[in-house]
Formats: sequence, structure tokens, C-alpha cells
Amino acid sequence: MRAVDLIRKKRDGGELSEAELAKFVNEATTLREWETYQLSAMLMAIYFQGMTPAETATFTRLMTDSGKRLDLSDLPGPKVDKHSTGGVGDKTSLILAPLAAACGVIVPMMSGRGLGHTGGTLDKLEAIPGFRVNLSEAEFRVALKNVGIGMIGQTADVAPADKTLYSLRDVSASVESLPLITASILSKKIAEGITGLVLDVKCGRGAFMKTREKATELARSLVSVAHASGLVCEALLTNMDAPLGRAVGNANEVVECIETLKGRGPDDIEELSVRLAARMVHLGGCAVSDYEAEKKVLHALSSGAGLEKFRAMVAQQGGDPRVVDDTALLPTAPHTARVAAEHSGFVEAMDAESVGVAAMMLGAGRQRAEDAVDHGVGIFLKAKPGEHVAAGDAVFEVHYRSDSRMPAVLELLSRSYTLRDTASRPEPLVLETLA
Amino acid sequence: MRAVDLIRKKRDGGELSEAELAKFVNEATTLREWETYQLSAMLMAIYFQGMTPAETATFTRLMTDSGKRLDLSDLPGPKVDKHSTGGVGDKTSLILAPLAAACGVIVPMMSGRGLGHTGGTLDKLEAIPGFRVNLSEAEFRVALKNVGIGMIGQTADVAPADKTLYSLRDVSASVESLPLITASILSKKIAEGITGLVLDVKCGRGAFMKTREKATELARSLVSVAHASGLVCEALLTNMDAPLGRAVGNANEVVECIETLKGRGPDDIEELSVRLAARMVHLGGCAVSDYEAEKKVLHALSSGAGLEKFRAMVAQQGGDPRVVDDTALLPTAPHTARVAAEHSGFVEAMDAESVGVAAMMLGAGRQRAEDAVDHGVGIFLKAKPGEHVAAGDAVFEVHYRSDSRMPAVLELLSRSYTLRDTASRPEPLVLETLA
Repeated sequence: MRAVDLIRKKRDGGELSEAELAKFVNEATTLREWETYQLSAMLMAIYFQGMTPAETATFTRLMTDSGKRLDLSDLPGPKVDKHSTGGVGDKTSLILAPLAAACGVIVPMMSGRGLGHTGGTLDKLEAIPGFRVNLSEAEFRVALKNVGIGMIGQTADVAPADKTLYSLRDVSASVESLPLITASILSKKIAEGITGLVLDVKCGRGAFMKTREKATELARSLVSVAHASGLVCEALLTNMDAPLGRAVGNANEVVECIETLKGRGPDDIEELSVRLAARMVHLGGCAVSDYEAEKKVLHALSSGAGLEKFRAMVAQQGGDPRVVDDTALLPTAPHTARVAAEHSGFVEAMDAESVGVAAMMLGAGRQRAEDAVDHGVGIFLKAKPGEHVAAGDAVFEVHYRSDSRMPAVLELLSRSYTLRDTASRPEPLVLETLA
Repeated sequence: MRAVDLIRKKRDGGELSEAELAKFVNEATTLREWETYQLSAMLMAIYFQGMTPAETATFTRLMTDSGKRLDLSDLPGPKVDKHSTGGVGDKTSLILAPLAAACGVIVPMMSGRGLGHTGGTLDKLEAIPGFRVNLSEAEFRVALKNVGIGMIGQTADVAPADKTLYSLRDVSASVESLPLITASILSKKIAEGITGLVLDVKCGRGAFMKTREKATELARSLVSVAHASGLVCEALLTNMDAPLGRAVGNANEVVECIETLKGRGPDDIEELSVRLAARMVHLGGCAVSDYEAEKKVLHALSSGAGLEKFRAMVAQQGGDPRVVDDTALLPTAPHTARVAAEHSGFVEAMDAESVGVAAMMLGAGRQRAEDAVDHGVGIFLKAKPGEHVAAGDAVFEVHYRSDSRMPAVLELLSRSYTLRDTASRPEPLVLETLA
């Protein structure tokens, strides 16, 4: 099969057969006959013409099978993961994994690093002294067996076709394609050997999908292809206009996770973590209903069982478990600055993307994939949407290491929120559930 | 300017600015910052989103200026070329250039080679013993000065950006894009230093554009961008359902050209050559009206002035001018076969593309650009559409060297025409003129 013929077929709106998709995925893996300029032209043709649901499901399966698919069937119990489309201040993975594991779910979680204004689970975990995210497969299995949680980065042998295609999409403007996003996300998740998946599809100013409509479309595509791939799966559509919780950074987000597991976290972070964990527990068959699942998760939270799972996970992956009791062991930044309200009022809106970009500029995130991350720096929201501030009150507290970009950071933050005279009704956190 | 940003802009339907187009063309020429996979993604985005007329004109100019633009202003007189979108049996260049030159037009013609079912002017010229199409620029200028005609291949320094982009389009399925075709054709023509251009846009079964609508669209795009580029320009929309003339090949087509210049050529070839030459004469200002131009060209034909220009051109470019008087000096093929009519009737339709493919299979054309061409082989149409044959009469005479592909060639030819009981009204040759 010649590249040009398959590209033309897709360009003209055709549905690629399984053999044709297999050729494309195989060439993305091996680059034996096709050139990268043919792969990128095919990606752009897919961007414009899309894929049918059946085509997307086949494509996803072939992407998974371009690499290694973990077989966790020797571990007794349901294997359920959560995937989020990325947000600002979203540290729920570190909370819901211990909560779900405390309820009997095995959570084999491969995560990514932060890029642009969004943070990444791996960066947060690495803020914990000693924590290793690069476990070998054997170590990962031991962690799942001993603790019920393994939190690692994507290994080189997972969906290699996606690695090539994703980097091409990133530099040739075909990222925002529903079938390509769907296959990219699910091929990697399926490779984890999971039986169930809960999706947190973000929607709003700080999300990849800015509108409810686009987010719903993505959620539907993900759920239907996950089902076609034999997973039990549900998607929550959640609000990402403002940052989640009060901490945006790395070490400071870990502190907030520990606080949440101690029952002292911000309302939104606790709510979202519990809701997502409950879905995992229900999908995993550890509860007969959502209601029962939520009760179990709340009990894991109030009893401290979730916190103990967190401590065990940290220890299992080489991290210093004493951070649970003494968060001062986590890295910090030497300097503090504040962004104060110019007049009094209720915080109305807060732009998660601006806050995320400000955190990135501090060094908490990455402009480019190869950048290093400063785990100690970050931003603390002294006021969240709906809360009242007096003139001169801090809205943000910025923890920084270097002065160099501070003027730009402070300027960006001071323009990232609006005040008004009366409190506005807060947006719901979970907008919709798609199953 | 990052590649990904410009690709995204075009992908989302934006109009690229002159600076943005300049970046794209510059990178296609130098490949300094952009990768080929970004060029091909941009080409596919242009395929889907198109370009505005102004954008296409700017793009064309930048493509021309990516290489050398000949300055022929030292040669007194109008410099007018003809470009055809490619057909089967189309040897008009070898006839109209001498006719137009005999009327005072300077014809600096850079042509291409045949590919697929269509023939190429360079291959036909090279059938003449000794004929050199690879003149140096100095030799080209001398030919234009002495004879008024120079017929050469595209040199390496003409529109190098187009060379890169065209080869990428060819293998990544973005050939059929109006702005890309327009810029590719015109950038190379403008580089010849011409003041005027006549376009022969083919339309029908044997043409690149199969429908009247598509061909009209292309003609309009070409004419408007040519005008925006400062050329006087007209396009003729001409029929390419059946092959032009009776000879399809290389040496046999040269024979037909010589016969036509002697006033003994097929009607369609003579008519199209005269009409196109007359447009060149009129656009070049060597006649005040189309009517006067046509009279001048017809006189050049009947007086033998055109034939003498042809002879001079052959001699000037190193070819053996005796071929004009003795076509037996041209290469031939050792064997002859015929395709006979199974019953009597009038030839109704004849599929130019099938005849072109059959000629290619004989070795007269190329499947791939790197293939060699056999100048002696070819096909002779013993009957053209509208003509009567008795059962057993030859419809095609095939001149071949090797038996190997003959069964397939004969099979293809025997299925390439239809007979009917009554003569059908022939299609007009020139369908429309666009100025």
C-alpha cells in the first residue's frame, strides 16, 4: 500500500480499512517505507476528514498493539485508572488513587509531565524527596501487588506509534483532532492492562477544550471507543474555568493533597477527588451503586485509610513517607510576593490558563518538553471565585526563586481575575456524566 | 515565525500574509528551520482551505523569486510562451513556436518531460538526432536572438521552492489544489522572462481536469494570477477526450509536426496550433486583432516560413535539420501490430487516457520520473472519432520494440474506443476562451 494512495483516500473522505490503518500505524512505528512528511500529511487529512467511530476504535487498538500491552491478569481485583485531559491545579490523581485503592481497586497509573499552562502528575510526585516514577515493570507489578497503586511515567515500549504521531502533530498543527486525540489517550491507557477507566474531561478557560460542546464531543468519542475496546468507562465533564484547589505548582500541590487526605482540603479538590474515586470503585465492581461507592470512598477519607495508602505508595516508590506528617520536608521557594486586590469585592472569575502560565513562568511548569521544573515554586490562591476580599487583601501569594520574570508574573496574575460587588453563584464542578 | 503557527493559521482558514508566505517559500527552498513534515502538513492545509486570489498571486511571485528570473529585456520584441496542462498526442508546441516566431514573437519555452499517460515536449524534441534541450543560459539567449525560439528543460535554478513542494505534493496527495497548481505552473513560466502567456487548459477524459467545471476553475485561477503578475494572458479551454492528431509517441509525433508545418497535418492539430499561435501573436502585439493574427499565422504556415523556423530551431539546438526533408532519419521501432475493428461503424469515442497509457507501456512514456524513454515506439490512429471503419480495418497501428507488454497494450487499445452505426457530431476542439 503506497502512502500517497492512503493519504488521498482519507483526504477524499474515505474510511480506511483495518489493513490500511495497520499499514499507517506500522509505518509510524518503524518508518520503513513512509516518510515523516507522508505521516504528517495523513494526520492533516485526518484532521479535516475525521474518522468513523469504528475506524477510530480500530486505529486505537492498532496504536496500542504497536507496543507492549501489560498483562495484569495475575493480580486479583479490578484494575481501574483515571485520565484527565489536563488542567491547572488539578492534583486529584494523588488523592483519588489512594482513596480508590483503599476501597479495593488496583490503580496502575501511567501519567505525563506538565507542558505549557497545565501541570503533570509526574512532576508533582517528584517534588517528594526520593520518589521514583521510573519503576521497572517488575517494580511496578510489586507496587500494585503490595500497595494497589503504581504511579509511573509512560515507558518507551508503550504505544511507540503514538509517540511518533504525537510529536508530529505537535509541530505540524494537527493536535486538535477528535479521532487522533481519542486514539492517543486510549491507546496508552489500554496498554496499562486496565479493565476500567474513568475520564475527567475538562471544559472551560483553563482546559484544552474551551467549550462545553467540544468537551462533550471529546467525552463521547473517548467513552464509545473505550467501550469498543472492551473497557468499562465513564466520563465526567468538569469545570476548568478557575484553577482547582488553592495550590498551583508542585510541592505546594502535594501539601494540598496531603491536607485533603487529612480532611482539610479545599472543597472543590475534595469533591472532585471523591466523585472520581467513587466512579472508579463502582466501575471496578467494588460497590454495587454509585451511592455505595461514594460512601465507601468518604469512609476511606474520614478513617484515614486513604492517607495511609498515600503514605504506603510514597514509601513503595522510594519517596520519604515522613512528608505525610511533616510537609516542611518538601521543597520550598526562598521568596514570597503577593498580588493584592485594588478594591474590595467578590472574586467573580479567575482565568485558570493565566494562572497556569504564571506558574510556568516561575519555573513550576515547562514551556518546552525538555525544560527542567522547579518543584519549590508556585502560586497560592488566597481567594477563590465567590470569596470576598477587602482592598489590599492578597488574592495570590507567589513563591518564587528568581526575580527575573516576576514583573511579568505579577502583571499576568493581577489581570487574571475580576471582582464584583455581589457574590455570584458558583459554577457547578461536575457538569455532566457520560456513560 | 514558527511552522506550527503558520500551519494552524492556514488550517483554520486564515489568509497568510506576504511575510508568512515568504517564510514558507523560503523554508521550502532552504529547509533551514522547517522540516519536510511541516511543509507537507502546510500543503495539505492549503489543499483543504485554499488561498485567496491575492494570496495565490503573492505566493506565485515568491515562488518565482525563490530562484532565478531570466531578464530578456535586452532582446527586442515580445516574449510569449504557451503552456498546456498536458494531454495525449499534444505536439502543438513544436508547431506553434515556429509559427509564432515566424510572425515576430520570441518564444522562450521551458518544457517538461512526459509522465504517466501524458507526453512531454522535451522527449519529442530529443527524438530528433542530436537535439539538445539542456542549453546553457548563454546558448538559450543566442537561440532566442538568432531564431526567436529556445526550447529547453527547466534549469535547476528556476523556482527551487516549487521543486521541493511539487515533489512533496506528489507523494503526499496534495497535487490537486487550485492555488498550488496555479503557483507551480506560473512561477516557472514567469521565471522565463516572458511578457505574455497563452494557456491551453485541457478538459476531458485524457486531461488532468476531467470536467468542464474544474478546467474552467483552473483556467480562471491561472489567468487572474498571471494578470496580477503583470503578464498579458489568455486561456483556451480545449477538448482532451480523444488523442490530438494521429500520432502518439515521440519520433512519430515529430513526423506529424513536420507534416503539419508542410500543410499536410491532421485537422485538429493544425487548428489548435494555429489558434494558439495566433493568440501568442496577438498577445505579443504583432497583430492588432485575433483575426489579423490568425491570418498572419496561416500565412506563415502556407508560405513555409513556419517550417523554415522549425528547421532553424533544430539546427540551432544541435539537431539534424535534414529530418525536415527526410523523416526517415528519425528513430523507428522494428515491429508493427494492428488493432482491427470487429465490425464496421463510425468511431464514436476514443479514450485519450487509455491510448496514453498504452503508449507509456510501449516505452514512449514514463511510469516513474526516472524511467528512460524509447523514442521510436508509438501508436498511430488509423481512425479518429467521426471516421468510418469496415470490419477488419485497422483502428490503431502499434509500433513496438519488445513483445513483453504487447498483449496488455493491444487489449487496452481494443477497449479504448467505441463504434456506432451513424456518425456523431464531433465535439468542438476549442470550448471557450478566457481572457
